[in-house]
Amino acid sequence: MGKVLTSRKENYSQWYNDLVVKADLAESSVVRGCMVIKPYGFAIWEKMQGILDKMFKDTGHSNAYFPLFIPKSFFSKEANHVKGFAKECAVVTHYRLKNDEKTNKIVVDETAKLEEELIVRPTSETIIWHTYKKWIQSYRDLPLLLNQWANVVRWEMRTRLFLRTAEFLWQEGHTAHSTKEEAIEESKKMINVYSDFAENYMAMPVIIGTKTEKERFAGALETYTIEALMQDGKALQSGTSHFLGQNFAKAFDVKFTSQKGKLEYVWATSWGVSTRLMGALIMAHSDDNGLVLPPKLAPFQVVIIPIYKGKKQLEKISEKANEIKSKLEKLGITVKFDDRNTHKPGWKFAEYELKGVPIRMAIGNRDLKNETIEVARRDTLEKKIYPQKDVEKVIFKLLEEIQNNIFKKSFDFREENSFIVENYKDFKEKINNKNGGFLLAHWDGTVETEEKIKQETKATIRCIPLENNIEEGKCIYSGKPSKQRVLFAKSY
Amino acid sequence: MGKVLTSRKENYSQWYNDLVVKADLAESSVVRGCMVIKPYGFAIWEKMQGILDKMFKDTGHSNAYFPLFIPKSFFSKEANHVKGFAKECAVVTHYRLKNDEKTNKIVVDETAKLEEELIVRPTSETIIWHTYKKWIQSYRDLPLLLNQWANVVRWEMRTRLFLRTAEFLWQEGHTAHSTKEEAIEESKKMINVYSDFAENYMAMPVIIGTKTEKERFAGALETYTIEALMQDGKALQSGTSHFLGQNFAKAFDVKFTSQKGKLEYVWATSWGVSTRLMGALIMAHSDDNGLVLPPKLAPFQVVIIPIYKGKKQLEKISEKANEIKSKLEKLGITVKFDDRNTHKPGWKFAEYELKGVPIRMAIGNRDLKNETIEVARRDTLEKKIYPQKDVEKVIFKLLEEIQNNIFKKSFDFREENSFIVENYKDFKEKINNKNGGFLLAHWDGTVETEEKIKQETKATIRCIPLENNIEEGKCIYSGKPSKQRVLFAKSY
Repeated sequence: MGKVLTSRKENYSQWYNDLVVKADLAESSVVRGCMVIKPYGFAIWEKMQGILDKMFKDTGHSNAYFPLFIPKSFFSKEANHVKGFAKECAVVTHYRLKNDEKTNKIVVDETAKLEEELIVRPTSETIIWHTYKKWIQSYRDLPLLLNQWANVVRWEMRTRLFLRTAEFLWQEGHTAHSTKEEAIEESKKMINVYSDFAENYMAMPVIIGTKTEKERFAGALETYTIEALMQDGKALQSGTSHFLGQNFAKAFDVKFTSQKGKLEYVWATSWGVSTRLMGALIMAHSDDNGLVLPPKLAPFQVVIIPIYKGKKQLEKISEKANEIKSKLEKLGITVKFDDRNTHKPGWKFAEYELKGVPIRMAIGNRDLKNETIEVARRDTLEKKIYPQKDVEKVIFKLLEEIQNNIFKKSFDFREENSFIVENYKDFKEKINNKNGGFLLAHWDGTVETEEKIKQETKATIRCIPLENNIEEGKCIYSGKPSKQRVLFAKSY
Repeated sequence: MGKVLTSRKENYSQWYNDLVVKADLAESSVVRGCMVIKPYGFAIWEKMQGILDKMFKDTGHSNAYFPLFIPKSFFSKEANHVKGFAKECAVVTHYRLKNDEKTNKIVVDETAKLEEELIVRPTSETIIWHTYKKWIQSYRDLPLLLNQWANVVRWEMRTRLFLRTAEFLWQEGHTAHSTKEEAIEESKKMINVYSDFAENYMAMPVIIGTKTEKERFAGALETYTIEALMQDGKALQSGTSHFLGQNFAKAFDVKFTSQKGKLEYVWATSWGVSTRLMGALIMAHSDDNGLVLPPKLAPFQVVIIPIYKGKKQLEKISEKANEIKSKLEKLGITVKFDDRNTHKPGWKFAEYELKGVPIRMAIGNRDLKNETIEVARRDTLEKKIYPQKDVEKVIFKLLEEIQNNIFKKSFDFREENSFIVENYKDFKEKINNKNGGFLLAHWDGTVETEEKIKQETKATIRCIPLENNIEEGKCIYSGKPSKQRVLFAKSY
């Protein structure tokens, strides 16, 4: 098996696509913009789901499920919301097919037209707040802390596997609160959960901040975001949490009786991450040999490959390999023993390198005699021989080391590619540099300047970082006063 | 809190609806035929999912995800399949909304019409087999054992919460094999997994059998089913597994090179269970006081309610209750301690009875002195006082006892309501009896007789039981020879 991927240097975008398809993560489907998530890719997504779901439950949330379809009229109820989503909606207009007798083909039955068209949900605020009206009467019904795991559809014109697809999988949290403060606290809490997940499980450092008005979610008063830097110097928005104020409560007339007996509108948040995280994970760590997975998200953390000649050798090696496998499994480590005789060891080595398995172990006849085993780590590609008796200690420690090393590598990369920029000339120079990166610069706070800079450089304001020393300065574009630096980058 | 449910005797169907809504399981949504699954209901579904998912993985299956939309033309490719599903399809025809300037309303943008309409998947055989064509070339690629958890849409005209809804949640397994025998074995294996789940987790006895040609899945050569008897004497089909032969392989031209080098069509199965199981679970065990949940599927198995006057008493009682809670949790038992001061103990007792929590414990000031605790079981409504020191042993054993007792009760009910019937007069008498039930009778094997019996009595052949002593006889309707009894019932 030769090199199967285009190199990052040669063509980053092609490298990404090659990797997604060849590592069996996903592929394009016959339906425009929709992907098939393949078993290995889906196993990673399941890991993500499991961890996030536990984090949501640990912070007091429950899961529920709301309809796939939203009546068209619901969209008109929140003015900004409809502007944001109307242009990319899949619309259901009929509910029956029939056989056309003339052509003997299956056609839409025109007599089965819906009175009101249904929209396949692009996000569920409207249908959920319509439901919350029935559920919320008193302060006793609050807070309402719900989440749903679901598929959503946004008819994007330019799609890329995981990063931007017409249908994608996600979770959407929708919470209702009696006070503004509590709702803001919730939206901050959830962006911190996302940041925790990104850094401590995906091993991907992120910057937490708020979006500018222009980049805010359609219908939100404030959008919190986590932004990560990819290896090509572009930013990837990896999760958002919105403080929705009373906008949806007003649109759907959701009021509650407060402890003081007053009738008030409910305060709202919503927050979500999607299969886009898969794209972030892939791009953050992988190399020209293939995927590099953090041990905490790998479907299996260790693969053991037997090197043998003939059935008898295989039997002896298998015995030892299975012994090691069960020792590791007792420590909670996931292990695959690949004893297939349909493929040679070299093929398997390449395959698991491509698929990003954190640790590959090989065991042959000589290892049996010497009581040793070969251990190769995916992140650094280093190989070492260890005594079999140390295997538990070695592997346990190594998995931790790999997790930390991957994070550190990403962190260092970001540091090297983050720049404080003082004027527009430097800004343009840096942003047009092949490596792009994060640019921290002063901005005058106006939409006009933001748009001008985007038109001229393709860079957008990714966020106004939360952990930001207030520092007065002058906007790099207009020269007007600015109170803090904001984060610019080109982005996905 | 008085009686909140209509009694089963008074109106079984109303009792079911009351229960689903009032126990916070689900409710109808504003979208015709679509339901909202509420947090408590969804927590039960998550338990089901978790157990089934593990069973699927333990039998070698992996999860994947395929698109929500299916091109219309795909349906025409398998003749029987399209007949089965064309009449109840949600059809996407457009991909954009716009603001109508005349009316200032949101309307469908007629310029954004799809070239080919997309169907919201009612089941995924077609899109999956289209994909399998790319994945399967050689016997080395087989078997392919995949499952997907997804939402599907069938535009049913008469809907009932969980039992029949336009959108529902399910899993659909789709497997590909190199031989007919292996595919048949797979479809049998999966109906046995479903039966295991129904009996050992849902505590619901089922009959395994095959469907008659008339009742078979659209596109299958054989459909295996599990059928359960509800308390109103109607059968509920709870899961099906289909041997699809080479029908879909032929429709989508999926061939593989066999070990002998021959090009052959691939053999297929598909199998699924859905949120319909929630309906089965609710109807199988519940009573006029509310839901009765088997401990293995209860979101929490034990609830502890403090009986107290004033803050100081509550503090002392809480200390003891939390001690008991953590002792039980160490045994893997899920416990909720409800110390809310917004509701009185009597209200809580009724609430948890309605919600089917298997064991309710109450602890008051006297219990603190006597070192006792009151334990009430939901299935029999029995109450007993136990010494606190025995609580772990008592509760652990009791949960097992409740699980077994619920199954036994359902099993005995089915036995009492299953009848061997020898002639059509008795058949009609039994089936028109208020209690309905399972009728085992001889049938001549023809669709005509099956349809006549259905027209005249509303009873259908639920299945041809697999565990069935071959016994010659005469069809109750036509008098023609029959080789074994089949299972008749009215059904959901």
